[in-house]
Amino acid sequence: MPSAESAPVDPPSPGGLAAQSGESGVGGLAGVGGLAIHPVTGLGEVRPGDDLAAMLAAVLVPADRSVSPVPGGLADGDVVVVTQKVVSKAEGRIVAIDGDDPEAKRALVESESVRIVRRRGDLLITETRHGFICANAGVDLSNVDAGTAALLPVDPDRSARRIREVLEHRYGVEVGVVISDTFGRTWRRGVTDVAIGLAGVAGVVDLRGTADATGRILEATEVCVADELAGAAELVMGKDRGIPAAVLRGVDPRWLRPSSVAGEIIRPPDEDLFR
Amino acid sequence: MPSAESAPVDPPSPGGLAAQSGESGVGGLAGVGGLAIHPVTGLGEVRPGDDLAAMLAAVLVPADRSVSPVPGGLADGDVVVVTQKVVSKAEGRIVAIDGDDPEAKRALVESESVRIVRRRGDLLITETRHGFICANAGVDLSNVDAGTAALLPVDPDRSARRIREVLEHRYGVEVGVVISDTFGRTWRRGVTDVAIGLAGVAGVVDLRGTADATGRILEATEVCVADELAGAAELVMGKDRGIPAAVLRGVDPRWLRPSSVAGEIIRPPDEDLFR
Repeated sequence: MPSAESAPVDPPSPGGLAAQSGESGVGGLAGVGGLAIHPVTGLGEVRPGDDLAAMLAAVLVPADRSVSPVPGGLADGDVVVVTQKVVSKAEGRIVAIDGDDPEAKRALVESESVRIVRRRGDLLITETRHGFICANAGVDLSNVDAGTAALLPVDPDRSARRIREVLEHRYGVEVGVVISDTFGRTWRRGVTDVAIGLAGVAGVVDLRGTADATGRILEATEVCVADELAGAAELVMGKDRGIPAAVLRGVDPRWLRPSSVAGEIIRPPDEDLFR
Repeated sequence: MPSAESAPVDPPSPGGLAAQSGESGVGGLAGVGGLAIHPVTGLGEVRPGDDLAAMLAAVLVPADRSVSPVPGGLADGDVVVVTQKVVSKAEGRIVAIDGDDPEAKRALVESESVRIVRRRGDLLITETRHGFICANAGVDLSNVDAGTAALLPVDPDRSARRIREVLEHRYGVEVGVVISDTFGRTWRRGVTDVAIGLAGVAGVVDLRGTADATGRILEATEVCVADELAGAAELVMGKDRGIPAAVLRGVDPRWLRPSSVAGEIIRPPDEDLFR
């Protein structure tokens, strides 16, 4: 895994943030190192076959940049977090299902799984084809039309790359893209948003072997910044507000590099103590 | 668990964010619903017996508010995330240990644990007295003086309440406080920061039974916003920069209510499929 130090990007400069976001320094981010999270409103309903990247660009990179939900419009170095639901809709990963039939739902979850990890009542914890271990194989009945369910994208890293490439090549902005979904955790209550697909922004940043603030060498400190970015974005999106994306501005530029969830975040079975 | 709806706080108003942070709206947060994360620099070295809340206040609520790392100084509704390391230092939870002696470290980890959950080589996953399941019982050898280790606070919820009470009663600001620590996760590589102590800000927000954007009733959607706040703060702190705290401005005011990690986030054994 590449370390943060090996990324071919300059460290942040004092003028970088303000210059990038057009901020005066008064009332904006507090100097170097701050992060702003902007909810993306106005995307409209996403339907199968829609060009989601173009829809995002219409909102984030409008002709009149002053009306973008991100100050000055989307800019190089921003990270766009997009929820799985709208990606699945655009990619047509919607299936018909009778939401009131537990058997139909169970069969659908099993068809999306390669392995059942735990089962209790209606709850299945399974491993998906991607290698995610999560509840109900990521099959979701909320925020989709009644009588339908949303499945996970076939290849969420590819979904992220497609959005990133359109934003870069068609609209001229070089950004990171995170596809996020809502997963539960062992031992802790409540779900959090995590990264299921990545393009152009790090999954895990390896700080092993670098000195800490006291000059001692750090022990293993591989930070999954992608999951923290996804969770941070969730804080401005909420489950009940129908906001399907957020833009993070001020992300450490060393993290903007090629990456994937499959390659960096999914823990290989031989490393895993809880399979 | 209280639902978001039952919290006795008004929903965010369009003027609230700008008014609260003194922002002009030009170059600041992009309208309603944005979140800004400010790293807290200038705290100085924390030592056993230090009044950490007063040290935070000296930086965040200075006589000249314009020099605070948070625009205009700490304000009502802000959430202060403080890393476990400085809390443990202030509370004297530092012990002498030969960091090169694996046996000594193992004995210390076991003395901080009530149960060994998994063991592989030098790595112990244990349950602490608090009920956390994490690597090495949270014992940490980094960012402390050589020959010492930092243990988790005895009662991190109490640590959070103390900081919050000092900030409120001595300095007149009503904020949420999160004590954060760095935990690994099952099935996913990399660590993320999570909440180990809370005061005045929600752990888990219960959106069950509320309508989603399509008007359908959501399935179980209990979001652990506290862990997302802790992870978001980590994004501006990093492991190698020695920044021990961050302030989040723009947090949903409905989340600012009494809470605790012990009461809301630690999953009871009878709910847990992975013990």
